Amino acid sequence: MLHVKELTLNIPDTTKPRVVIIGGGFGGVNLAKNLSGKEFQVVMFDRQNYHGFWPLLYQVATAGLEPDAIAEPLRKMFDEEYEDFHFRQVKVTGVHPETKTVSTLVGDLPYDFLVIATGTKSNYFGNEQIKQYSFPLKQIPDALNLRSQLLQCFEQANMIKDPEVRQSLLNFVIVGGGPTGVELAGALAEMRKHVLPSDYPGMDFSRMNIYLVEGLDRVLPPMSPESSQTTKEYLEEVGINIKLNTLVESYDGKVVTFKGGEQIKTQTLIWAAGVSGAQIQGLPPEASDRGRYLVNTFNQIIGFPEIFAIGDIAFMKTEKYPRGHPGVAQPAIQQGKHLAKNLRHIIRREPLEPFEYFDKGSLAIIGRNRAVADLPKNKHLKGFIAWMAWLFVHVYYLIGFRNKLVVLTNWLYKFVTYENSTRLIIRPYIRKDDIAGQEFVRKQADLD
Amino acid sequence: MLHVKELTLNIPDTTKPRVVIIGGGFGGVNLAKNLSGKEFQVVMFDRQNYHGFWPLLYQVATAGLEPDAIAEPLRKMFDEEYEDFHFRQVKVTGVHPETKTVSTLVGDLPYDFLVIATGTKSNYFGNEQIKQYSFPLKQIPDALNLRSQLLQCFEQANMIKDPEVRQSLLNFVIVGGGPTGVELAGALAEMRKHVLPSDYPGMDFSRMNIYLVEGLDRVLPPMSPESSQTTKEYLEEVGINIKLNTLVESYDGKVVTFKGGEQIKTQTLIWAAGVSGAQIQGLPPEASDRGRYLVNTFNQIIGFPEIFAIGDIAFMKTEKYPRGHPGVAQPAIQQGKHLAKNLRHIIRREPLEPFEYFDKGSLAIIGRNRAVADLPKNKHLKGFIAWMAWLFVHVYYLIGFRNKLVVLTNWLYKFVTYENSTRLIIRPYIRKDDIAGQEFVRKQADLD
Repeated sequence: MLHVKELTLNIPDTTKPRVVIIGGGFGGVNLAKNLSGKEFQVVMFDRQNYHGFWPLLYQVATAGLEPDAIAEPLRKMFDEEYEDFHFRQVKVTGVHPETKTVSTLVGDLPYDFLVIATGTKSNYFGNEQIKQYSFPLKQIPDALNLRSQLLQCFEQANMIKDPEVRQSLLNFVIVGGGPTGVELAGALAEMRKHVLPSDYPGMDFSRMNIYLVEGLDRVLPPMSPESSQTTKEYLEEVGINIKLNTLVESYDGKVVTFKGGEQIKTQTLIWAAGVSGAQIQGLPPEASDRGRYLVNTFNQIIGFPEIFAIGDIAFMKTEKYPRGHPGVAQPAIQQGKHLAKNLRHIIRREPLEPFEYFDKGSLAIIGRNRAVADLPKNKHLKGFIAWMAWLFVHVYYLIGFRNKLVVLTNWLYKFVTYENSTRLIIRPYIRKDDIAGQEFVRKQADLD
Repeated sequence: MLHVKELTLNIPDTTKPRVVIIGGGFGGVNLAKNLSGKEFQVVMFDRQNYHGFWPLLYQVATAGLEPDAIAEPLRKMFDEEYEDFHFRQVKVTGVHPETKTVSTLVGDLPYDFLVIATGTKSNYFGNEQIKQYSFPLKQIPDALNLRSQLLQCFEQANMIKDPEVRQSLLNFVIVGGGPTGVELAGALAEMRKHVLPSDYPGMDFSRMNIYLVEGLDRVLPPMSPESSQTTKEYLEEVGINIKLNTLVESYDGKVVTFKGGEQIKTQTLIWAAGVSGAQIQGLPPEASDRGRYLVNTFNQIIGFPEIFAIGDIAFMKTEKYPRGHPGVAQPAIQQGKHLAKNLRHIIRREPLEPFEYFDKGSLAIIGRNRAVADLPKNKHLKGFIAWMAWLFVHVYYLIGFRNKLVVLTNWLYKFVTYENSTRLIIRPYIRKDDIAGQEFVRKQADLD
């Protein structure tokens, strides 16, 4: 690969208004799909070359799906049918509203309209130690790394001398009782019941503990109290240790200490506790509120009528959503589609339409026949019907016909056999602390 | 993860003869499947926790299959049905025939019978520079790394200033005209024709060059001259530049120089030129011949009746195969099964049976409707019928029902759409020279 200085963005000049979209997630993709190349030149930047379907990421981490099944190459989604669309796999380094320019690792580009759709990143609330030692679950490499970690814990628990250290390999602490934490805990419990006892015949899996730690007083705080209660019962049925009203004080890679003093020895702390907006340098602090860009109902960032923010990075305060929209796919999808309409209005000098979120409901899965759903009009589903709804919705929204096929194949296979199939240990990257301390992984990988 | 000193192999004591198998490839797996836990205690060591189906590895590298589809977790293959079978994911560091002990990273284990089934590793013929800069294709992380490299070359070629450097990104040099090199070249040619022009609408793919370099005077030297000739014609039809009788002198990451002086500028040199046995320390040099263990027809290593070598690491000189058996799956599979029989003979004090290789034929694929097959009795197939045979044989031998399903789904999808679907850039590891020189990859990955 080349040095950065040899590269250039190489975007053709245009007389059409140029829309630059930063991020190929739910917001960015749905915006770009709805902008016509006849009216706009559309440029999309992303550090990755794929669009990930993050609601299924926890299944990659728990060996249920291969990473390629939940992601779609952005260039495949935007093929030659999309006239004057330009994707560049490059990191954006800054925004310069005064010159209407965006900077990337390989050069600058002027824009007419800039759309920030960068989503969120893990938020460790300033705790560098937790950042260093915990396992995040935001990106595909995170999921592959966590999958390898889980499986290596069992391999090593099978070879350990000291019973106390063995227990620390079999303790899994998930911090954060939102959908990611709940679904991950449920999937781990299914592995413990169906897969691991046959993989490790000599091991006693009644000793494997799964802790789900939540700072608030219920799991799935964004969902209804009814669904929270059902979820808590389901989690207890499958043997999850739930710790509510509990905050993490510190984690040194071996022991997690909670505020209040309680400690658990664990080699694996999964951090699903919080996210903050993945902001771009260059906008003043007044434009943000706790890491999200303040936008009006047209998704314009306050003070910057040509710069928009959509999805998780946008904070649109409305009467119904005084704390902004929930951080899930639907608001991003709907804002992306809606902004396409408003950009057309702008260039046609028509009045803009305010965004209104249509809540289609929300779902969470704990395991086979165990799921919860909040529907509009305060209706709730649970059990088999919610489980079927979860499966259907996730396959329906998954991008790409091949991905739908592969995911259905895997789920059908798992339904019949109870097997999580993709149990390969492939470390996608070596973390800094691996290089320093994880002698075992390093020595194993050390090729002659 | 833990420090090595905290671990131990933790294999139960036994009164049965203990067979220690090093390597979970075709040989090791077929041996273990045919040894009864009633008669033997079977211990298998592998650095990976999966059995890979390497004949399909090139499809992972060219974005046709996900890695999980061509590999099966060893613990899944050997579940609780296999009595007294013990898998340990650990690196073997040495053999001590005098004490009948094998050493691993986490401890020693006495054996009654030791079976070395470690296969091969890439052979760079002592050229450290080529080892550092070229892309091997032996393991799943290699394939993921090569896939990312290929896709990043196109991303960067799209953003490059200098036309000469752009050309070096679009030159792909495959060294080695054996099955891996030929199949990889064919798959790259299909991508160039069907996938890339729609992914990169502005780019001129007539400038993309695929070179296949072979030191001997024909491609596929292990196959019949007829199949070599057909393969050469197929490769030329799909636009591969074949260079026969050509040896690589050096490669510095930018320019490959051939013996004779010719040079090609390329960012991607794929090394499929040679392998050598992945030997274990501790046996005397007389027991080996150019990296393979010399074995008798019972697969016993010369001078060590309790140590066996099977598959690619074994060199069994016979009248029909004076240079050993071909380095493909079938001899390993057959030797594994056969050795199980002979180990039973040994403990029952019965005479051993000499191994005889049954050549079922060999196959290679270049692309849709383009394949070659050598059958027993000097029969040859080509074209559609050989292509169908290739597809059938590879699905048939692939381990695991889920893998068969997923591979068939992918192939069917590709057959209809001409798409290589798994085009995600996920770097599985950072190579030493990435850290030093690959500024672009590093800066992109540098999270805030």
